[in-house]
Amino acid sequence: MSDITVELPDGSELSVDEGATVEDVAYSIGPGLGRDTVAGVLDGDLVDKASPVYDGVRIEIVTDQSDEYLDVLRHSGAHLFAQALQRRHPEAKLTIGPWTDDGFYYDVTNVDLDEADLRDIESEMAAIVEEDLDIERFERSREEALDFYEDNEFKRDILETEAAGDDPISFYRQGEFEDLCKGPHVESTGDIGGFKLLDISAAYWRGDEENETLTRVYGTAFPNESQLEEFLERREAAKERDHRKIGREMDLFSIPAHSPGCPHYHPNGMTMRRELEDYIREQNESLGYEEVWTPELNKADLWKPTGHYDNFTAEGEMFNWEQDDTEYGLKPMNCANHAYIYGREKRSYRDLPIRFSEFGTVYRNEQSGELSGLLRVRGMTQDDGHAFIRKDQIQGEIVDVLEAIDEILGHFDFEMEYVLETQGDNAVGSDDIWAEATESLRDALESEGLEYEVDEGEAAFYGPKIGINAVDAIGREWTIGTVQLDFNIPERLDLTYIGEDNDEHRPVMVHRALLGTFERFMGVMIEHFNGKFPLWLAPEQVRILPITDDNLEYAEAVAAELGDFRVEIEDRSWTVGKKIQQAHDDRVPYMLVVGDNEEADGTVSVRDREERERQDVPVETFRDHVERERDEKHVTVDFLK
Amino acid sequence: MSDITVELPDGSELSVDEGATVEDVAYSIGPGLGRDTVAGVLDGDLVDKASPVYDGVRIEIVTDQSDEYLDVLRHSGAHLFAQALQRRHPEAKLTIGPWTDDGFYYDVTNVDLDEADLRDIESEMAAIVEEDLDIERFERSREEALDFYEDNEFKRDILETEAAGDDPISFYRQGEFEDLCKGPHVESTGDIGGFKLLDISAAYWRGDEENETLTRVYGTAFPNESQLEEFLERREAAKERDHRKIGREMDLFSIPAHSPGCPHYHPNGMTMRRELEDYIREQNESLGYEEVWTPELNKADLWKPTGHYDNFTAEGEMFNWEQDDTEYGLKPMNCANHAYIYGREKRSYRDLPIRFSEFGTVYRNEQSGELSGLLRVRGMTQDDGHAFIRKDQIQGEIVDVLEAIDEILGHFDFEMEYVLETQGDNAVGSDDIWAEATESLRDALESEGLEYEVDEGEAAFYGPKIGINAVDAIGREWTIGTVQLDFNIPERLDLTYIGEDNDEHRPVMVHRALLGTFERFMGVMIEHFNGKFPLWLAPEQVRILPITDDNLEYAEAVAAELGDFRVEIEDRSWTVGKKIQQAHDDRVPYMLVVGDNEEADGTVSVRDREERERQDVPVETFRDHVERERDEKHVTVDFLK
Repeated sequence: MSDITVELPDGSELSVDEGATVEDVAYSIGPGLGRDTVAGVLDGDLVDKASPVYDGVRIEIVTDQSDEYLDVLRHSGAHLFAQALQRRHPEAKLTIGPWTDDGFYYDVTNVDLDEADLRDIESEMAAIVEEDLDIERFERSREEALDFYEDNEFKRDILETEAAGDDPISFYRQGEFEDLCKGPHVESTGDIGGFKLLDISAAYWRGDEENETLTRVYGTAFPNESQLEEFLERREAAKERDHRKIGREMDLFSIPAHSPGCPHYHPNGMTMRRELEDYIREQNESLGYEEVWTPELNKADLWKPTGHYDNFTAEGEMFNWEQDDTEYGLKPMNCANHAYIYGREKRSYRDLPIRFSEFGTVYRNEQSGELSGLLRVRGMTQDDGHAFIRKDQIQGEIVDVLEAIDEILGHFDFEMEYVLETQGDNAVGSDDIWAEATESLRDALESEGLEYEVDEGEAAFYGPKIGINAVDAIGREWTIGTVQLDFNIPERLDLTYIGEDNDEHRPVMVHRALLGTFERFMGVMIEHFNGKFPLWLAPEQVRILPITDDNLEYAEAVAAELGDFRVEIEDRSWTVGKKIQQAHDDRVPYMLVVGDNEEADGTVSVRDREERERQDVPVETFRDHVERERDEKHVTVDFLK
Repeated sequence: MSDITVELPDGSELSVDEGATVEDVAYSIGPGLGRDTVAGVLDGDLVDKASPVYDGVRIEIVTDQSDEYLDVLRHSGAHLFAQALQRRHPEAKLTIGPWTDDGFYYDVTNVDLDEADLRDIESEMAAIVEEDLDIERFERSREEALDFYEDNEFKRDILETEAAGDDPISFYRQGEFEDLCKGPHVESTGDIGGFKLLDISAAYWRGDEENETLTRVYGTAFPNESQLEEFLERREAAKERDHRKIGREMDLFSIPAHSPGCPHYHPNGMTMRRELEDYIREQNESLGYEEVWTPELNKADLWKPTGHYDNFTAEGEMFNWEQDDTEYGLKPMNCANHAYIYGREKRSYRDLPIRFSEFGTVYRNEQSGELSGLLRVRGMTQDDGHAFIRKDQIQGEIVDVLEAIDEILGHFDFEMEYVLETQGDNAVGSDDIWAEATESLRDALESEGLEYEVDEGEAAFYGPKIGINAVDAIGREWTIGTVQLDFNIPERLDLTYIGEDNDEHRPVMVHRALLGTFERFMGVMIEHFNGKFPLWLAPEQVRILPITDDNLEYAEAVAAELGDFRVEIEDRSWTVGKKIQQAHDDRVPYMLVVGDNEEADGTVSVRDREERERQDVPVETFRDHVERERDEKHVTVDFLK
């Protein structure tokens, strides 16, 4: 047999026989690794250890110590559920059962399931784990597979589409249960140390509303109980913090049936959005951006030369339509309009960078099933910006943006993670430019002393990118800001500037967002802070609680002294206890309790959301403190420590 | 014959014979008036003096002293043009030729006309005026009329549509020229003391792009030459001030082919828009409005209960389409979304007024032929606001809005005019509510000591309205702000509040805009100020002109002292004369010339756009002055007087 060469994670190369499997490669590295192998990753795809490798492939061996192990385990979790389901409900038909970020699901039909059924199935799952059944891969010929699924039109559909070219067909077996499956899986049902069925919802076969309705059962699985417990606790915490729930409680926003995916900001939510907008506008100004405004409505022609039209309409992701013989669209991004403004004038090398910012509202036709509060929307306003720069300005420009994002996210107490995405196979522009630009991004990250991951080959076709992820209070990661270089639009739209040599040159275009979109950022922030926003963002900043109605007048005097703060007076004739409770429920940063004593002394009793308290505080002292806390945009408050 | 009764302008009534004409009524008032009668106005419609009156009609007699006389004269101007055209180009076919606000036009076909032809036709028009031909009304039977227009399918079309029920048909004759026409006209071609043909453009038969293309010739006419001259001068001045021209020169905005009717704001224009926005936001806050944000994209269902859907789609004025089995639309107004936010919560009489403001971008599908710069657009952002109030709060609410508009427009040096529009035939809601509401609007206007016109019966169906018109520097009138009461939406959307009696009541909805839309206001303002904006609005506020490059450093020090002003330094190596000229061309409010003397003394030489000058001004003195001028939003500047 002739040799082929595979690339190992450390960059070294290994020659193996043609036809070798992942497991063979592992054994040829070392017998220990061979024995521990659960699966492999070939050029980024998680595959069964029985999969053959091919010449030039990048290979990683997956053991129970790998990050990918959890995906494999959860895939087996889906089979565990399916086997238990078939034992208890033999009439149920299985369709597909993949792993997900949080666990797995299985879409089934011909069976009615409720919460009680899930508990019942779970006990059968426990029994199967106890049985510690080997999970084995085997093959059937295409004909046998079609026979096996004589009564299951969904599995037959899979055989005729995704698996259309395969013969033999890959199956997995554990005990009496067999399932059409490409794997990979763990060795035995006993490896699944912790599992739970979480939810039932409706789904459509192949996600298409025109097809059959299926029952989707969500579950999760872990190597052991304690990891499961930790996950369930975090999930409970996330539910507590659900931004939709807090959004209702604090009257921040709503997403009515007449506008699916298009949030309406109520006065409280708009106050926060305005604070964010003002802050980002300041940042944009100091970064040298000039604000512009461009319309949502454009002719579809606008996005054809840039390639966006084909890109967005292929998946039906754009809102576009024909009216009066014209094809219109709602802008799915602002860059084409900004490039137009750049292109209207002759630009000189001395004028560059030219930078346009816009709080630009864009619309994308996300599937209604995918919409989720503020985190997955159709209508969103980006804190967008585009800089048109010379090649020699790349690094400086990127450093400035990274520093701004660092400063901004610092005001929100997020941990940050940076990801550098590099040139992929579909890249436009010369390799030299890519290498130079990627190097500039690297240098920018390193000159700032920032740690970053590299996603090799993951950049969009038009240029390399840095993604900035925020890690929230309960450990979830959210992509917030981005900085991306673009060689494509300047080329396609023939954007130029006149160089010092009097010739025409191409500018590089930088796309960047500091917060991303108001919608996503607000959604993340609400959950991150659990609605207990930093003072500068809180819709209501101070509530004054007069002990009796006699103290109302003094309450008003205190409010007047607090000038431009957002202050409310609790004037309902409640007990102080109830007033305090209500203010806590409303997540108001500061409560000022004022009674006869305070009135006599010109002071207030201050309480905060952490139930810390300080008495006899002169109003002026309080005001000085909160002015600093607000104006410096502090998250943590030391006033009442 | 039995008597009928007509109502004269002073409110008195007059009995006349049935079948009496406008002229008969004039003679029965007095023989002098009878002789002077040119036309009449019956219930608001300008008609020929031969028109019969009817019982209960409100009648005005039009003489050459009336406001309406100019319309009549211009209508005759259109005939004058048509007669001259037929003499010089007998093959030309006439279609329609109405009067307009500025003159008249006539749409013709089967003839090619250029500027030279217009001059030639004008000389024929002058000859016809010289001939002083009587203009006489006469009638043809329907059959004769159709025969007469055997070769003119347009006039036949009119006979078959607008004049379908008439027989006999009204014609006018002057010399050899005859035209199908309802009038009215002046007595003789000699009455047209001044006229001019102004422009040629393309038009469509009945304004429909699917129909034949016609040639539209614009002209104007006046009783005498001097009025014509004055008009032409003002027209020239308006051309000079054309906001599209100034918009280009100052790089304020553009309306690209990819977005017809949808202005893009460039950085300079956006600076102005932002200043306006900040100022209006302040006003909204002090009026008690809470800002909200609602999406452009909604399901079309949203506008069905309010009646807007039928209203806007009847004329194709809405952008709406079907996608994924859903009918979507771009909001043509914000009120439905605001009413939704109001309706989400239970409201108490104590909470009212509840007021929502939004800088809301709306889209209306205006015909492309009607679009005109910023003044007639498809995409516009309103400084919109809706207050939900109790009936007893109407007057107070209106007074507050009127005072705010008065204060705002005061900063722009506009003269203001107020128009009260009252209940029409199609009004919804009880007569009592209308009477009370109209009285409240009147009381509000009168308590503010404002003069106003009344447009009887002109209100929209849903409630009475005050329109606020601004009169610009060259005497043109523009509708800017509005305050409108609405009894319809609260009824149709079942909006309620709980009254002191614990019962449900209907709030009244107030629609109001202070500036109207940014687009229209900017367009008007650019022309009003001829691009010489008040300091607070000017995109560039101060330009520093160093006499030589040696003074550049001092220029930068002066710029630094001017802190948050928008300051540029002219650093091109030009003569001071050329620098000053350029700054004048760029309409920069203040130029600071700095040379060695200024540098030695720490002063500047100040020049303004009126070419006034003051030397040896300490920088601090200048800064104090411009800070006041900017922060107090002055239009007229006394600093250099």
